[in-house]
Amino acid sequence: MGWPLAQYLTARGHVVGGIDAYYRRDQVQEMGGQSAIAVAEPNERIAAYGDKYGKEIYWVKGDISEWDTAKKTFNDFQPEAIVHLGENPSAPYSMIGQAHAAWVHTNNVIGSLNVLYAMKEYTPNAHLVKLGTMGEYGQPNVDIPEGYFEIEYRGRKDKLLFPRQAGSWYHQTKVHDTHNTIFACKIWGLRSTDIMQGVVYGTRIEEMGEEDLRLRTRLDFDECFGTAINRFACQAAIGEPITPYGKGNQKRGYLPLRDSMQCLTLAIENPAEAGEYRTFNQFEDTYNVYELAEKVKSVADQLGLGAKINRIENPRIEKEDHYYNPDHQHLLDLGYKPTSDMESEIKLMLQDLMQNKERIEKVKECLIPQIRWDGTKKKSKLI
Amino acid sequence: MGWPLAQYLTARGHVVGGIDAYYRRDQVQEMGGQSAIAVAEPNERIAAYGDKYGKEIYWVKGDISEWDTAKKTFNDFQPEAIVHLGENPSAPYSMIGQAHAAWVHTNNVIGSLNVLYAMKEYTPNAHLVKLGTMGEYGQPNVDIPEGYFEIEYRGRKDKLLFPRQAGSWYHQTKVHDTHNTIFACKIWGLRSTDIMQGVVYGTRIEEMGEEDLRLRTRLDFDECFGTAINRFACQAAIGEPITPYGKGNQKRGYLPLRDSMQCLTLAIENPAEAGEYRTFNQFEDTYNVYELAEKVKSVADQLGLGAKINRIENPRIEKEDHYYNPDHQHLLDLGYKPTSDMESEIKLMLQDLMQNKERIEKVKECLIPQIRWDGTKKKSKLI
Repeated sequence: MGWPLAQYLTARGHVVGGIDAYYRRDQVQEMGGQSAIAVAEPNERIAAYGDKYGKEIYWVKGDISEWDTAKKTFNDFQPEAIVHLGENPSAPYSMIGQAHAAWVHTNNVIGSLNVLYAMKEYTPNAHLVKLGTMGEYGQPNVDIPEGYFEIEYRGRKDKLLFPRQAGSWYHQTKVHDTHNTIFACKIWGLRSTDIMQGVVYGTRIEEMGEEDLRLRTRLDFDECFGTAINRFACQAAIGEPITPYGKGNQKRGYLPLRDSMQCLTLAIENPAEAGEYRTFNQFEDTYNVYELAEKVKSVADQLGLGAKINRIENPRIEKEDHYYNPDHQHLLDLGYKPTSDMESEIKLMLQDLMQNKERIEKVKECLIPQIRWDGTKKKSKLI
Repeated sequence: MGWPLAQYLTARGHVVGGIDAYYRRDQVQEMGGQSAIAVAEPNERIAAYGDKYGKEIYWVKGDISEWDTAKKTFNDFQPEAIVHLGENPSAPYSMIGQAHAAWVHTNNVIGSLNVLYAMKEYTPNAHLVKLGTMGEYGQPNVDIPEGYFEIEYRGRKDKLLFPRQAGSWYHQTKVHDTHNTIFACKIWGLRSTDIMQGVVYGTRIEEMGEEDLRLRTRLDFDECFGTAINRFACQAAIGEPITPYGKGNQKRGYLPLRDSMQCLTLAIENPAEAGEYRTFNQFEDTYNVYELAEKVKSVADQLGLGAKINRIENPRIEKEDHYYNPDHQHLLDLGYKPTSDMESEIKLMLQDLMQNKERIEKVKECLIPQIRWDGTKKKSKLI
């Protein structure tokens, strides 16, 4: 998301800088995958940015979980807003075993702690737009508010953080960082918007244009870094069955990449107050995984791909049938206009992916999950 | 707490082993403090244990945040119950700056994650008695249940984790570890009792006896590792004013060291079920900090010490006036018999401390706090 967002914001007139350790590239390779869309090398991206926008971009290769790097970057660039996308985002990757679980904890929790300390020391008035996940809430049997809820308990009232029930070590680290960010806002007067984002899908945004392929962003489809809809679209594109996990009744919120850009920009351009920590639930609609598979199949059929759906063993330990009714009003109040057309977005995706069939076919084994929540590694079977 | 607990459990017939990195000793020194009670070197303790109990103790010098060490220890000793006291316990220590905050996060969160992975791999039926803290709950304006609460929200019901509002990075790490432990119990079927412990005070337990000084445990009084009651008792013992922070209306739960041993043993001897995560709020009574100061003063006066109370600037950012009504029924249901005599316990403490006046006086500067929650370092003034 960082590369498209840098372009989206630049096109709106913002001065953008970035820091990236490029771990995603290595980790997708570790999973036996590759991006379905070819992505340019970092220096090529920077050159393309210069060609398109007529200016240099401040861009650092570095790891914010190293304090000296975090410090130097904040001090040099002096951001007014920080969009923190630097957390490892994969539930299965965090569940591989102790080493991966510990690495994801260190990368995400220490990285985010360093962002808070760097803000405090160098940019105390800046606004932190932090990427959380709808997955922090889990699947409670009650409505999910945006961050906080007012309760009455034994005759007394309070407004408290809505309890978190994360479903993987990755999701846990997001919960930890939510708590840490709240605390930093409280004691140091920092500003933060915490984005509980649904699953993002899509291959492109308009700002990337059509011609310069160096401006394109990645689309992963391996079991770790490919979300359900990405995997389904890749499966349809190469004529493999679409494989929802288990019953497929697991409900989640979704939004297209272009809407994610719109929402993050609304948060950036309408910053939180000093000391304020606020939460936006960021998604457009909720679907269950089987409905998603059907949507992808229906668009694939229109394109003559003749897709099939075939359930596969669920490698996760999760509720497959559950109540799910999260609020998502805050962004609408700020002016968010949802694209509201999942099928057109999936069509664009499929068209892009059909042009990259060979890249997908070459590593198609990585589409089938092996990492199980019980700690074992075993390829899921079709059911 | 580990050394007294090892003795307490051994005296009850349990086979005890331990692993300790001995960081406390270095960190108290870093704070310019020392234990008011002289403590023996690790090898002397082990020898004293052999002399008293007629057997060798399995005792490792090592750091459980290193996976190989954690793994080896669990595999070698094969515990049936693990009492996890290996987290850094100091709020001010965690607030010194970025390096300390990051270290406390790594030590506590990765250490605890390693305990969970080691249990899963080597002792999946063992029972984890994990030390949390009452501080995880913060100061909500409603009653504090033991871990979970049943709520009705917009007409639907669920039983959810009671929201946490921790007041320091240290307390945050405890919240993180609570979430991680819940998740491990859920997906791997581990058993855990999470002890939300109040402030522990006292210099000794009966099992240590009187004669062999190598069996004694430490009592810290520096601003980081000395809790309010320890610091007050040390101040009274050397004729310095007793210094509650700010208004002194901050309420907390307290219990004597001997009661903590009793409670932890009840948890150990009545393990959680497979897959069960349960919470015990472990304290005897709640007092505010000024009431504590008055209790210490009153006992000190009986001993002819002529103590004074003098409020001091609060280095923390915290609510000084708040509602506080936590439940603490679970341990009573298991048979916990509170000592219920704080004054006798303080008297014993003061008698021990009066014999160690020189050790306290030598480093008495460390009694006055300097570490502020706003990130600065400045000695608090009497107010």
